[in-house]
Amino acid sequence: MTEIELPFRTLEWKADRLTLIDQRALPSKVNYIDYYNYRDIIVAIKNLTVRGAPAIGAAAGFAMVLASIEFAKETSNDYLGMLRKAADEIISARPTAVNLRWAVERIWKAVSSHNNSSVSEKHKLIEDEAIAIEQEDKELCRKIGEYGAKLIDDGDGVLTHCNAGALATAGIGTALGVIYTAAFGGKDIKIYSGETRPIDQGRRLTTWELAASGLDVTLLCDNMIGSLMRSGKVQEIVVGADRVAANGDTANKIGTFNIALIADYFDIPFYVAAPYSTFDPETPTGEDVPIEFRSPEEIIDIEDYAAIKGSIHVYNAAFDITPHELIAGYITDRGVVKASEIEQAVLTPLPD
Amino acid sequence: MTEIELPFRTLEWKADRLTLIDQRALPSKVNYIDYYNYRDIIVAIKNLTVRGAPAIGAAAGFAMVLASIEFAKETSNDYLGMLRKAADEIISARPTAVNLRWAVERIWKAVSSHNNSSVSEKHKLIEDEAIAIEQEDKELCRKIGEYGAKLIDDGDGVLTHCNAGALATAGIGTALGVIYTAAFGGKDIKIYSGETRPIDQGRRLTTWELAASGLDVTLLCDNMIGSLMRSGKVQEIVVGADRVAANGDTANKIGTFNIALIADYFDIPFYVAAPYSTFDPETPTGEDVPIEFRSPEEIIDIEDYAAIKGSIHVYNAAFDITPHELIAGYITDRGVVKASEIEQAVLTPLPD
Repeated sequence: MTEIELPFRTLEWKADRLTLIDQRALPSKVNYIDYYNYRDIIVAIKNLTVRGAPAIGAAAGFAMVLASIEFAKETSNDYLGMLRKAADEIISARPTAVNLRWAVERIWKAVSSHNNSSVSEKHKLIEDEAIAIEQEDKELCRKIGEYGAKLIDDGDGVLTHCNAGALATAGIGTALGVIYTAAFGGKDIKIYSGETRPIDQGRRLTTWELAASGLDVTLLCDNMIGSLMRSGKVQEIVVGADRVAANGDTANKIGTFNIALIADYFDIPFYVAAPYSTFDPETPTGEDVPIEFRSPEEIIDIEDYAAIKGSIHVYNAAFDITPHELIAGYITDRGVVKASEIEQAVLTPLPD
Repeated sequence: MTEIELPFRTLEWKADRLTLIDQRALPSKVNYIDYYNYRDIIVAIKNLTVRGAPAIGAAAGFAMVLASIEFAKETSNDYLGMLRKAADEIISARPTAVNLRWAVERIWKAVSSHNNSSVSEKHKLIEDEAIAIEQEDKELCRKIGEYGAKLIDDGDGVLTHCNAGALATAGIGTALGVIYTAAFGGKDIKIYSGETRPIDQGRRLTTWELAASGLDVTLLCDNMIGSLMRSGKVQEIVVGADRVAANGDTANKIGTFNIALIADYFDIPFYVAAPYSTFDPETPTGEDVPIEFRSPEEIIDIEDYAAIKGSIHVYNAAFDITPHELIAGYITDRGVVKASEIEQAVLTPLPD
């Protein structure tokens, strides 16, 4: 199968700069921003110009390349020391983002183990490693797409949630990678996406990237999903994952669990699409995943209630846990597996 | 039990004018608007200054009184003809609102059957009937509150949806009537409310009216309900209804069905609070309820996608159907009944 080319690029490395699509402006405006300085990429990660764990990881890799370009010009001969400092700054952009730390440390390891090479040799190692991180992510997406597309039939309606798309990765996405591969493979499918309150990644990002790519996409509010499934319009659900526990319990964007329960009632298969790196052998079950609660201001302006004598609280959980019993299969870069097969098929390292 | 006094009034008749709380401005601003002209009340119904079927019905009754005041002053002796014309204008403010038509026709019937009485006698009949409609609604809310409060224990967390509150009725509300009665009866309860996308009546109205009344209320996004129930914070769910079919299937604000399914998974009782008039013997099952789809603009600005080659659609269902198997009981003004008891207990007219 030929590589799928989408009409936008989430991130693109151009020898001396990283170009990012500004995800804050979508869908109203399609703006690309050039970054020549690693500090500006830190800002872009913090303010969500770029988001999605794999996309952040790839951007962080190129931030290291830009830091290296800068430090190689300095007369100081503490190139590695400055680079380590930059690495720590980049990691601290979003401290809980596992991919961010992983990408930066991978690059650091590649360069710091070659202490005796020249600065220009070191720089080459960094750039090669950053490009490798990007390319590997593309390849993971491509494989997930190919395995997953086989689960989708011509004429199907596919519901997704949040944005596990090209905008979240360096490639065609995980859940949306499955959808792109099915659609560009010739299947006529309709895609449904909930708003994904409170940050609205489904409304702002998923509908935009699918429609920009020429697909047929329908937006609905998250609370309309039961109504939609009852109407018979949905044949499969495909979502991404933030973390999959060893038993298959899946942490993903808030609302995923609701969808899985409703799908179970209507007997509609619910799939999780994620690369091997999202499966965590250190997390036995969903009970072991800490849930992040975010600020009330994402949902409500508490000031509006200033004159009120009662108490207004906000429950703003960022993720929920979908128990593995509700998941029909996991679409990975190593094939589609069931919960009972995760340990052998996904958590076991591949032979080199 | 003494009558519950809330610190706001949804609507109040003051001899020559109707005062409405402006529900469009809540929760940021608490504005009361005086209406001296029935045409302005038509505008208020259209633009959602007043909403909620029983509140609209009561407001429409007082619109008839204002029309009568105006026409009684005219030298023309076609008082009844002008009144009928006003009645039709008021009904057309929201053509699908059953309570609106019901209230206006009830008043019309009261006055048109007394063709030989004087204009001032006719006016008295209209005002008495409008006040009776308001008082009866208060009484229905009071009874629903008293029956329902017995289902709620001290220390419980109660989840509701949309706004079936004092802001939707002339009294203390239906679902929120149950909550007020439990809380003012001395039970320490916590209330949870979803945003209720896309019009956000939960966020804008339910949290405001509960907190204004001194209660402890927590807002969440509709897609966080599974997460909330898993946390063990919810002991009962109480929602209102737009229409209950003879078999107990319930049409209510979009998202209600999702909540009922999730509650079923966690074995949390799900109650529907509604007066006898919401139960429709002409509707055998939920399949027979037409579902209103509303405009895409409530959810998305399609203009944002002007440059896109694919298709963006919007699924904006205003209501969904909760099957009776998922409903633990119906809290009515005639007591709490099960689906199998609706026909005998609720649909049978009471003896005079």
